[in-house]
Amino acid sequence: MQPNSETAFMQTETKLQRWERRAEWPLAAAAIVFLALFSRQVIAEPHGSEAHILWAVDWAIWSLFVVDYVVRFILAPNRSRWFVRHLLDFAIVTLPFVRPLRLLRLIVLIKVLQKAVGDAFRGRILVYTVSGVILLIYSASLAVFDKERYLPGATITTFGKALWWSITTVTTVGYGDVYPITNAGRVIAVLLMVGGIGLVGVVTAALASWIIERVAEEDTAIQAATVAHVEELRGEIRELAEELRRRGDVDHHA
Amino acid sequence: MQPNSETAFMQTETKLQRWERRAEWPLAAAAIVFLALFSRQVIAEPHGSEAHILWAVDWAIWSLFVVDYVVRFILAPNRSRWFVRHLLDFAIVTLPFVRPLRLLRLIVLIKVLQKAVGDAFRGRILVYTVSGVILLIYSASLAVFDKERYLPGATITTFGKALWWSITTVTTVGYGDVYPITNAGRVIAVLLMVGGIGLVGVVTAALASWIIERVAEEDTAIQAATVAHVEELRGEIRELAEELRRRGDVDHHA
Amino acid sequence: MQPNSETAFMQTETKLQRWERRAEWPLAAAAIVFLALFSRQVIAEPHGSEAHILWAVDWAIWSLFVVDYVVRFILAPNRSRWFVRHLLDFAIVTLPFVRPLRLLRLIVLIKVLQKAVGDAFRGRILVYTVSGVILLIYSASLAVFDKERYLPGATITTFGKALWWSITTVTTVGYGDVYPITNAGRVIAVLLMVGGIGLVGVVTAALASWIIERVAEEDTAIQAATVAHVEELRGEIRELAEELRRRGDVDHHA
Amino acid sequence: MQPNSETAFMQTETKLQRWERRAEWPLAAAAIVFLALFSRQVIAEPHGSEAHILWAVDWAIWSLFVVDYVVRFILAPNRSRWFVRHLLDFAIVTLPFVRPLRLLRLIVLIKVLQKAVGDAFRGRILVYTVSGVILLIYSASLAVFDKERYLPGATITTFGKALWWSITTVTTVGYGDVYPITNAGRVIAVLLMVGGIGLVGVVTAALASWIIERVAEEDTAIQAATVAHVEELRGEIRELAEELRRRGDVDHHA
Repeated sequence: MQPNSETAFMQTETKLQRWERRAEWPLAAAAIVFLALFSRQVIAEPHGSEAHILWAVDWAIWSLFVVDYVVRFILAPNRSRWFVRHLLDFAIVTLPFVRPLRLLRLIVLIKVLQKAVGDAFRGRILVYTVSGVILLIYSASLAVFDKERYLPGATITTFGKALWWSITTVTTVGYGDVYPITNAGRVIAVLLMVGGIGLVGVVTAALASWIIERVAEEDTAIQAATVAHVEELRGEIRELAEELRRRGDVDHHA
Repeated sequence: MQPNSETAFMQTETKLQRWERRAEWPLAAAAIVFLALFSRQVIAEPHGSEAHILWAVDWAIWSLFVVDYVVRFILAPNRSRWFVRHLLDFAIVTLPFVRPLRLLRLIVLIKVLQKAVGDAFRGRILVYTVSGVILLIYSASLAVFDKERYLPGATITTFGKALWWSITTVTTVGYGDVYPITNAGRVIAVLLMVGGIGLVGVVTAALASWIIERVAEEDTAIQAATVAHVEELRGEIRELAEELRRRGDVDHHA
Repeated sequence: MQPNSETAFMQTETKLQRWERRAEWPLAAAAIVFLALFSRQVIAEPHGSEAHILWAVDWAIWSLFVVDYVVRFILAPNRSRWFVRHLLDFAIVTLPFVRPLRLLRLIVLIKVLQKAVGDAFRGRILVYTVSGVILLIYSASLAVFDKERYLPGATITTFGKALWWSITTVTTVGYGDVYPITNAGRVIAVLLMVGGIGLVGVVTAALASWIIERVAEEDTAIQAATVAHVEELRGEIRELAEELRRRGDVDHHA
Repeated sequence: MQPNSETAFMQTETKLQRWERRAEWPLAAAAIVFLALFSRQVIAEPHGSEAHILWAVDWAIWSLFVVDYVVRFILAPNRSRWFVRHLLDFAIVTLPFVRPLRLLRLIVLIKVLQKAVGDAFRGRILVYTVSGVILLIYSASLAVFDKERYLPGATITTFGKALWWSITTVTTVGYGDVYPITNAGRVIAVLLMVGGIGLVGVVTAALASWIIERVAEEDTAIQAATVAHVEELRGEIRELAEELRRRGDVDHHA
């Protein structure tokens, strides 16, 4: 690879990154509007002019995502590689006809969240997991309610029950008073269960990391030597070497 | 900020802290009396004079909490900031008409517990979690029983069943033989599930911290160097420097 | 405290310990015989002469536990303190009329297990937890089956179902196809749930400790400095001091 | 033990290992073909010529496993010890008449997987666990469906329901809308529950290890001193010793 092509590559990459940085917040806003709109569509099932307006806004948001996808595809330095690496984005843009899949657009929210939250790693991962799980619970409730509400034999017949079912699933409680009966509902359930295992895992792991740190702080006898301690030690050895050198010079002059 | 205003701030803060220290135990006692009284009210549903006495004691306890809130509000150096940071206390004091919410008063017990338990961090966090979960199970049982006992189609019809339901929920077992059917009951269930995830997390994390410590103690080859070890090393380097200096002086005098 | 009384205390303590060491295996054997006998009594409900023999062996085992308790009480240096610290043993000996509580005798098995298993801490705690949980599942199945088998409305009607219920409870799956309906059964369920949280906690914690150790072994750049490393460092500093001293002597002689 | 017999032992061991290395992929391929075939047999229950072909391929795969077992038995240096250590392989080969047990052949897949996945320990253990759990879910679904589909009172009547049941069990959700009613089905359920505890344990432990590492990287003040740091320190002490020695020589020459 020549330095020129390398530099060109860097600049194109930067253009793509600039677009992504600028498109981030509008897309996040569009995703939030979409969440409100989708909730209204699913829960209230509006008719007449309201239905038409919601329908129009829905397609406007979809257009935004399409524009973003096309621009990023054009700006990508290696388009075939970019396409393969962004198959999920492709699915979001091309599958708006499968209604629950439209919720995948909310992934842009998680990307924003990832950047917005603070600096401390443990706090960041906790905020990120908890927000992700709340988003997952809400989306799963909407999707399963949309799929099963009118089916004969369904137990998820109100949005409240859908929310209740999502929460009992994500915490792996699973009473069984409410449960999905369609394959689509069961696929959503599996996503919730995987999210639940992740939630328990992250909470426990963050607690373990915190307890181990605090226990170590309590007692220096069991506290691991830190880089800071080794640095101090190195300082003393250097001082010793310094003094030796200085004394050596004095000897020579003497 | 001037030193004077700083000092004044410190003194007012101290007054507030002194009040909080002195009010702690009376409030905790009031919370325990309230728990007994609330249990009696919910489980036995007494009539006549007993109901009147319980009613009077209930309002006396509420007055205590109001007095504590007002005094702390007056003593607070920055009242608007204090108000915002103590919204939960405001809810406890202003929402006694929503019966299950009165149980929020038990939070003062947890504050006392936090101070009463021992010094070792891991033991402290375990005692704290287990006590908190027991308090949560009991309060949730009372609240859900109070809400659902007389509803048609309810499965939580005795206090024993309410307790049984709380425990199967907090441990995320969730048989489904007993489950809440009201929104209030389901909100209580969510609190129990969150408490359950916390319980599993704290128990596992404390165990992990303990096992890691014990495994390290067993074998010095895999044991992390501690601050104590680095301190010993530093001692030896200092001795070396000492001797070097002493020998240097001897050389000079010679 | 005088040295004499101290010595006497030490000798009495030794007598008690010697008894405990010698009584350990016979008591464990008695507990295993009791487990077989109790299983037979509960599952097959034998009549006639077999029932009489089982009844006789049951009381003989109980006598063994009584003798052990009395001897230990007599040998204890501070009897009132010993009594308070062994209230569980007192309950085992005095409450044989509450049938499920007789299963508490199996605790002697766990004590033996604790000594019998290997040396590595992590392996030991895993073997100990898994064995304890298996014992808990079997005992809980027997106890709940004994309590609920003939009750109207009971779902635990065969020993197989009791075992199935115990396992779904300890793993916190809780289908709800089988569940206890008596208070005794629900207390047993709570023990199983606590055991289940402990099981998940120990397995996860042991895995975490193992993974952390293995990850550290893989890459010395992130591997914590061990005591062995600090010892090597100390050796080099000592050699340096040694050489300094030797050279100093040479200088002086020169 | 003489060096000669030692060498002979090493060479025979190598022969066995070479066979195992060469047989690994054909056996894994046979296991995958078997999984497809078994799925077809269980789900579609084909009749006529298709059934005969599947039957023939099934026995051909079984022959492959028998040949592999016999060759390994003959090549084993200590046959009786090898037999005892490979009882599971013996069961796989001798129990093909118990249909669900044939799925044990899939264990060869896990062995291949163990070698195929990458080098980083944490990633390896995660890939390994997740693949193992997916294999377990699929096998358990097939086995329980095969056992219970035509039984009166069964709730696992379609393969979809079997898969749904396996997933709710392995994640310990356990709604109870679908559950096994035979002893064979319940044994499969126990395997799934054990797998579920393992899955939660491994995910949590890997996360804990990762978080602890990342938190330590963030702040050198709490970062454990690594072997690399101690090595740097040792380098400086050696330089000091070097200089001391050099200066000593200069003094002597002077």
